[in-house]
Amino acid sequence: MTGTSKTLLEAYNNSAHPLTGHSPRTIEVLTKALAAWDPETESDIYGTGRVISQFESKLASYLGKPSAVFFPSGTMAQQIALRIWCDEKGSRKAAYHPLCHLEIHEEDGLKELHGIEPVLLADKDRLITLEDVKSLPEDTACLLLELPQREIGGQLPDYEELEAISTYCRKRKIRIHMDGARLYEILPYYGKTAAEVCSLFDSVYVSMYKGVGGVAGAILAGDETFTKQSKVWKRRHGGDLISLYPYILSSEYYFDERVARMGTYYEGAKELAAMFNQCHGVSTVPQIPVSNMFHVHLKGTKETLEPLLLRINEETGIGFTTRLWEVTPSSCYFEVSIGDRYTAVPKERLYEAFRKLHEAMEKAV
Amino acid sequence: MTGTSKTLLEAYNNSAHPLTGHSPRTIEVLTKALAAWDPETESDIYGTGRVISQFESKLASYLGKPSAVFFPSGTMAQQIALRIWCDEKGSRKAAYHPLCHLEIHEEDGLKELHGIEPVLLADKDRLITLEDVKSLPEDTACLLLELPQREIGGQLPDYEELEAISTYCRKRKIRIHMDGARLYEILPYYGKTAAEVCSLFDSVYVSMYKGVGGVAGAILAGDETFTKQSKVWKRRHGGDLISLYPYILSSEYYFDERVARMGTYYEGAKELAAMFNQCHGVSTVPQIPVSNMFHVHLKGTKETLEPLLLRINEETGIGFTTRLWEVTPSSCYFEVSIGDRYTAVPKERLYEAFRKLHEAMEKAV
Repeated sequence: MTGTSKTLLEAYNNSAHPLTGHSPRTIEVLTKALAAWDPETESDIYGTGRVISQFESKLASYLGKPSAVFFPSGTMAQQIALRIWCDEKGSRKAAYHPLCHLEIHEEDGLKELHGIEPVLLADKDRLITLEDVKSLPEDTACLLLELPQREIGGQLPDYEELEAISTYCRKRKIRIHMDGARLYEILPYYGKTAAEVCSLFDSVYVSMYKGVGGVAGAILAGDETFTKQSKVWKRRHGGDLISLYPYILSSEYYFDERVARMGTYYEGAKELAAMFNQCHGVSTVPQIPVSNMFHVHLKGTKETLEPLLLRINEETGIGFTTRLWEVTPSSCYFEVSIGDRYTAVPKERLYEAFRKLHEAMEKAV
Repeated sequence: MTGTSKTLLEAYNNSAHPLTGHSPRTIEVLTKALAAWDPETESDIYGTGRVISQFESKLASYLGKPSAVFFPSGTMAQQIALRIWCDEKGSRKAAYHPLCHLEIHEEDGLKELHGIEPVLLADKDRLITLEDVKSLPEDTACLLLELPQREIGGQLPDYEELEAISTYCRKRKIRIHMDGARLYEILPYYGKTAAEVCSLFDSVYVSMYKGVGGVAGAILAGDETFTKQSKVWKRRHGGDLISLYPYILSSEYYFDERVARMGTYYEGAKELAAMFNQCHGVSTVPQIPVSNMFHVHLKGTKETLEPLLLRINEETGIGFTTRLWEVTPSSCYFEVSIGDRYTAVPKERLYEAFRKLHEAMEKAV
């Protein structure tokens, strides 16, 4: 017990060695990026202007798609992608995983704004397989695949299965959309370029603030017909702002800085997951990460585990997480995403924290 | 003729004395505002955190409403306001002016996303009157009034008529929503506080980048029940970004700086409109402005007027406008919005430009 009423979040934010992410989410993230640009750089204006069109071209090229559109959020971009594919087919059916972002984090925007009826594929705790996809109703307009599947620790299908799913969808005229919120992060594991993975999809969304660490924003890419329609829907959603440059310029700055580091984050995730898996009562999902992220599952109640993690934080300066989620009455989990911070953590401190975690877990559970 | 192929926009952007707006739309607008904040200021996170909640409280108080929500755009905020009022009444009918922003600038988002059927009130070239409002179908959920009515030069009803419309709507259980994109700008003319004008409305949208001159963003205000629902819709629209602080901090900075200057902008608009009205073949709508804005109507074709304005720009450094819109085959108009720049324009240059405009118009039309 720490003897204080500090929360995990407070302790994490004040810890000398937080393990996850890039840096605190302060306004310095933006000011640092803006300082790299000429102050006389002209704002984008309602989706036009050099600042936005250059970055859109750059990302279209990176993703190997003819065209790309900058959006303020992935929520907006993905609903719009699914709407376009549903309208194309004249169907209201789009298929995705039961723990898809659109299903659990968007207040049912897809249903309420677009009248789209999702077809939920697979069980909550596993990936969508080719077999699942083969069960899709004939009038399904679109399949959304999230790579990696975040809510189950960032799992990925084998690349061969992904190819088979894509081939099947194209044969059956089912559009295939990628939720690539963490696309950059999986490229080292697949050993593919972004363009190679994207070639399996008709439309792709990538995030500019997760692994890249920008302020906010998203890119939606596909062919010209698709992106042209997406701009109309962007305006309808209220996303065609007079100026999106705060997000665009910070996206470009951190994209240039961090995309090349994804391999380092991936190696860090594997190293760190192995340390968790050596502790009593602790295991990771996936056991061996396939991106920069994984989930840490711990035996024990929140009441037992929180003070335990707080004490290790206080004694070693290592911040494991900002929060615990209860899985069952006697187990919890938290999410780890490796960014710039991990390589700066002194190894001896890290080993000390893991020794303490192992010992404390042995005593506690 | 200038002998060059410069466009009005290019000439305006390079002119020594542009008449309208505050400053060029460069990224310096943002960096200047951010420099006023501690770099360690924490980002808002999905609509929570001090940065967003403090500004929302400040604007709620300014507008005299119990609650306010920061939105990335007015397009998003206003569709949502109308949706909430329509759902409350179980009706799909919302009434507004034929030149309402939702009708002409939003790609029919209100219809396509929310299934709302607008009731168009009044003719295109005049304000909505109490008589128009009395003709509304019984099942109208909501009336949107834009103060001032931008597309007709920024006209305003008498305050007594506004009060009568509000009283009528409340008696008939028709919700009344303000498109207050330029609310601050009309307060000097009405001689009222924002809270006094807003008290006539159930919900209010104000812009953070027009008169205020922020980067982008909007506030939607009303009672707690209303704003709580608006946050759910904001997430559905994809507007609940992980970080909105670039817009919030710049909004607050320029709000603090400029709201007190609205009287100066209004006086400038009246002065400038009088100069236009003294020129041959030129008149303003309204003749005497009631805010910082007005429209300038000029006899003559675009082909006649563009080189004429370019020449005056070149000779005097005065930039009148970035663009001409054709009204009829033989008349054009442009919009004027007075901001910080106007007071810095040397008066002798201004008078010279107007002498030249008068003379050129006498020759040309």
